[in-house]
Amino acid sequence: MDLNLMRELSVRTESKIVLLVLDGLGGLPGPAGKTELEAAGTPNLDALAARSELGLIRPVAAGVSPGSGPGHLSLFGYDPLQHPVGRGVLSALGVGFELEDTDLAARINFATMSETGEITDRRAGRIPSELGSELAALLNEKVDLSPVETFVVPEKEHRAVVVFRAEDLSDALSDTDPQQTGKKPLPVRPTDPDSQKARRSAELANAFVQQANEILSDRHPANTVLLRGFGMHPALPKFDEVYRLRAAAIASYPMYKGLARLAGMEVLQEGEGIAGEIRTLRESWEGYDFFFVHIKPTDSAGEDGDFERKARVIEEVDALIPEILEAGPAAFAVTGDHSTPAALRSHSWHPVPFLLHSRWAVPTAGGFGERACAGGVLGTFPAEEVMGLLMGHALKLNRYGA
Amino acid sequence: MDLNLMRELSVRTESKIVLLVLDGLGGLPGPAGKTELEAAGTPNLDALAARSELGLIRPVAAGVSPGSGPGHLSLFGYDPLQHPVGRGVLSALGVGFELEDTDLAARINFATMSETGEITDRRAGRIPSELGSELAALLNEKVDLSPVETFVVPEKEHRAVVVFRAEDLSDALSDTDPQQTGKKPLPVRPTDPDSQKARRSAELANAFVQQANEILSDRHPANTVLLRGFGMHPALPKFDEVYRLRAAAIASYPMYKGLARLAGMEVLQEGEGIAGEIRTLRESWEGYDFFFVHIKPTDSAGEDGDFERKARVIEEVDALIPEILEAGPAAFAVTGDHSTPAALRSHSWHPVPFLLHSRWAVPTAGGFGERACAGGVLGTFPAEEVMGLLMGHALKLNRYGA
Repeated sequence: MDLNLMRELSVRTESKIVLLVLDGLGGLPGPAGKTELEAAGTPNLDALAARSELGLIRPVAAGVSPGSGPGHLSLFGYDPLQHPVGRGVLSALGVGFELEDTDLAARINFATMSETGEITDRRAGRIPSELGSELAALLNEKVDLSPVETFVVPEKEHRAVVVFRAEDLSDALSDTDPQQTGKKPLPVRPTDPDSQKARRSAELANAFVQQANEILSDRHPANTVLLRGFGMHPALPKFDEVYRLRAAAIASYPMYKGLARLAGMEVLQEGEGIAGEIRTLRESWEGYDFFFVHIKPTDSAGEDGDFERKARVIEEVDALIPEILEAGPAAFAVTGDHSTPAALRSHSWHPVPFLLHSRWAVPTAGGFGERACAGGVLGTFPAEEVMGLLMGHALKLNRYGA
Repeated sequence: MDLNLMRELSVRTESKIVLLVLDGLGGLPGPAGKTELEAAGTPNLDALAARSELGLIRPVAAGVSPGSGPGHLSLFGYDPLQHPVGRGVLSALGVGFELEDTDLAARINFATMSETGEITDRRAGRIPSELGSELAALLNEKVDLSPVETFVVPEKEHRAVVVFRAEDLSDALSDTDPQQTGKKPLPVRPTDPDSQKARRSAELANAFVQQANEILSDRHPANTVLLRGFGMHPALPKFDEVYRLRAAAIASYPMYKGLARLAGMEVLQEGEGIAGEIRTLRESWEGYDFFFVHIKPTDSAGEDGDFERKARVIEEVDALIPEILEAGPAAFAVTGDHSTPAALRSHSWHPVPFLLHSRWAVPTAGGFGERACAGGVLGTFPAEEVMGLLMGHALKLNRYGA
């Protein structure tokens, strides 16, 4: 999407936009020949499709499976290749940490190390979140790299985030995770050896690991840390500046809240479960022009290879569609950030079903599914164009040129 | 479109291309669920569709409604974002004024100003064209900004064009039109205040308005002028140079003639009405390789919100399709420069039905309409690619690479 064009043409209006993202929505045909979305009983989405435009979106590039970061950045209109976001940054934003522009963040996995230094469990037996929080607090208190400040914040279970605060840091750094058990963790290395900043940042990160090992030495199974996904705060243009939208995000997982914050969205306190998220949408309706609603369990089911559960999650969302429609969005999109076919048990490169409802839609089918979307008027198109379409259908863009 | 690729591959042949543009062709479903094009009785276009390739074209960007300038530039293969065309330039070319490279042009609206200086009618009651011509001639004779030359040329009704001829002018200027009645006209301001050229051009334009006010002071209701759309001649590559085509344009409205001239087309003297335009096409057949034929009333009907009239214009064009086919074009496209759904009463962002007939087509449907085009082999694609397709189907492009 040409963000300068959006800046030039966008106007603030009363109309509201909803972008409902079912994480990993796209799938592959199961034994009965239907995909998860096609197999799910979705009377509401089917009826909506008959009054909507359909298409398939491609998040990054042909054949490329996107991570959650690029998948969402694309949906928000940013070129994901121009705006790489380190996992550490996502995690830091997801736990609500206020990253400063010069901060360096990395994801921590608490892990188990043998006496001879090999990693025996990369997730320390998935320790409970309470223990993860305790250990993060311990590191946060004890690690001392002064004058560089360090912050350690827990996520869930064995996951945490470390943030290094100093001037002149760099995220051109390699991970310590050996990816396999039975191997020793790797030292952090500058991926750009000519960079003074990267060399200094690598030294800092290695010093952090060394101190953490000492502090955690008697905390088996969580007796070491693996660092990965070094990243710094990307300077993304914000939704209010680019699209003139007061944007809100409703999501249940930290990473998606973090992604929304990157785009300048306000993260709302969500209700419990999918129904709770939709309740939050309804309760917050008057305060914003744009709502990003993120549904996680479709992706989790796909990653577990559970075709049936993924279809059931889609059915759960389907039952809530009337509640969203009652709120009266001028433009309402239902899609995913990428495909997660149960058959693949992972994110995939397949284009993602996309439905856009507005008064100004050209419908082509009476159902919502991969094959119905393939025949839609929108064709197969880059996910980066979703925001332009939503802005157009909500009548929030001036005409271009005379 | 990569114009360098076209330059490299295009060859001059005997085959002929027709690009028939029904302005604002694309529409939205009406009460009966069909769009204007789908509802129209089009036996000839339907039969042609069965021997043609179909697709949907997107003029500028997802969600963006194009003006006539960008819509046509896209169809001619130019990137409309790289080649902005001021309205003044379009108007000047449309009335046949031969713009020089350093000329500065602006659209004039004759308007009504109260004694206290507020605009009370932005179109001076849509004065008849005869009066508009008389007033334009008056300004053309009387305004004196020497040594800068000024030319005032009438368009239709309350519209005219002013051209300033001097070295070192700039079109980085704001409009004087306050957009609302009851407000005073705005002074022309340089949009780039650091530009000496822009400051000088703004002074010239303001001096023009001041003199015009004196000259028109007793000509109520047309007692002032509003200036908008300042522009200078864009340096578009020409059709003969890029595509090796001797290109002709047949259009009934000045702006579309102007757009064709920008691309280096020769503007033919058109017959009256749509049938007259097709007659001109037939009579001029031997002299050119490429014909751009522009049909205006589809757009006018859409802007009037008149679904039925738009469908009837399409039927009128349909009846003339056999005449075009009899001439024997090697490649023949029927499309629009943008959509103008009657439901929206304005240009819209919706992709536009596109039909391409040649001996080398892969048909997918027995009718021509938005939904039929959504399932075509061409998919939904940028309008900039239309010229490449036409050149290919007319066998006017060499193979690329060995």
